[in-house]
Amino acid sequence: MQKSKRAVVLLSGGLDSSTTLAIARHAGFEIYALSFRYGQRHAAELDAAKRIAAKFGVAEHVISTIDLRAFGGSALTDSAIEVPKHRELAAMAEGIPVTYVPARNTVFLSFALAWCEVLGAFDIFIGVNALDYSGYPDCRPEYVSAFEKMSNLATKAGVEGAARFTIHAPLIELSKSEIIRRGVELGVDYGLTVTCYDPDATGAACGACDACLLRLKGFAENAIRDPARYRSSAA
Amino acid sequence: MQKSKRAVVLLSGGLDSSTTLAIARHAGFEIYALSFRYGQRHAAELDAAKRIAAKFGVAEHVISTIDLRAFGGSALTDSAIEVPKHRELAAMAEGIPVTYVPARNTVFLSFALAWCEVLGAFDIFIGVNALDYSGYPDCRPEYVSAFEKMSNLATKAGVEGAARFTIHAPLIELSKSEIIRRGVELGVDYGLTVTCYDPDATGAACGACDACLLRLKGFAENAIRDPARYRSSAA
Repeated sequence: MQKSKRAVVLLSGGLDSSTTLAIARHAGFEIYALSFRYGQRHAAELDAAKRIAAKFGVAEHVISTIDLRAFGGSALTDSAIEVPKHRELAAMAEGIPVTYVPARNTVFLSFALAWCEVLGAFDIFIGVNALDYSGYPDCRPEYVSAFEKMSNLATKAGVEGAARFTIHAPLIELSKSEIIRRGVELGVDYGLTVTCYDPDATGAACGACDACLLRLKGFAENAIRDPARYRSSAA
Repeated sequence: MQKSKRAVVLLSGGLDSSTTLAIARHAGFEIYALSFRYGQRHAAELDAAKRIAAKFGVAEHVISTIDLRAFGGSALTDSAIEVPKHRELAAMAEGIPVTYVPARNTVFLSFALAWCEVLGAFDIFIGVNALDYSGYPDCRPEYVSAFEKMSNLATKAGVEGAARFTIHAPLIELSKSEIIRRGVELGVDYGLTVTCYDPDATGAACGACDACLLRLKGFAENAIRDPARYRSSAA
């Protein structure tokens, strides 16, 4: 049997990254999952990442600790900024959300690149999405392609011409509803994933932040009940 | 008086980054110095970074902890790999040294970019050098330029067109001897800097690793005595 190619998959424990992992596995890659403890307000996401990684039998799951809080600047890491609730989809599409974490995907992809070099891997999977998160600059195809180009100049393999790095962003052109449909086909158990920006201490979702609203809409469009646990007060 | 523009300067505490900081200051920037605790074998470098930052009166000095050791793969972070000693310059120029840390500059620049976004800064200074370290892929002009391009697509400011990021690499075409000459002109106290890949517990340099040999050659070419402290056993 041919040895599988290795891929590093960025895994937050959310719906998008879990679907991305399933897609990478389905494509035949041996999976090295990478998560970050980056000053998130809550640990529920990382617990979810561990469950997903275990469920899919990844070759290795590394949780790397980095401190982006030292720089501040996002509602997801800075407790002084409030997570917005019950916004209309139109409002979400306007401007860059306060939940944007400065240069987050660039930092995450850089770590993935470092791990690739050590593993001898040339494939990185990231679950960015340009449609639902149009406000995030580092979720656009032109960004992903610029990172890929930079990777091939940054690395030993790039210099030696051994191989080319590919940054796979299989969800980039999909709607949330299409992502969920694909994930269900591939057997992703969405009950294990955490999407909410503001879960309670038990990990139950709020049902009202941008991420929850988009997720619920995606399930509704597939006429599937979202298996995630919501707070009893949630919509 | 006009308010100074802010710049993030990557500061390792070595000769190159300290000279780079002096150049950024001389150019009129208000300096935000950024160092990393990234699993170096020794703390001497970071102590040096603190001394340099204090000496130059930077606006802020952040030391960010990241764990690249989780991935292994370099003599500088993996204690199983030995630091090579007494190599000829010709041997140094061949291939990529074992002291190369996977994707290190990409990781460092990503953090600098995150801090820039929070500070509203658009200038990053990095002391990479393409001549003496031709073996490091992420020290080449084409790499720096690719990172700059990616930065302008990765960020809020890039999307909103508020300003353009510039990655300054003022040493990139200089020889070690030219770097030292420039630093001396700008008043850098090289006695504060640490260059050695393998200092002892007191911070004294070995005088035999690639970094020490290049440094000593640079001082010799300027007919200046290197004020760094070398071990008594050192060449």
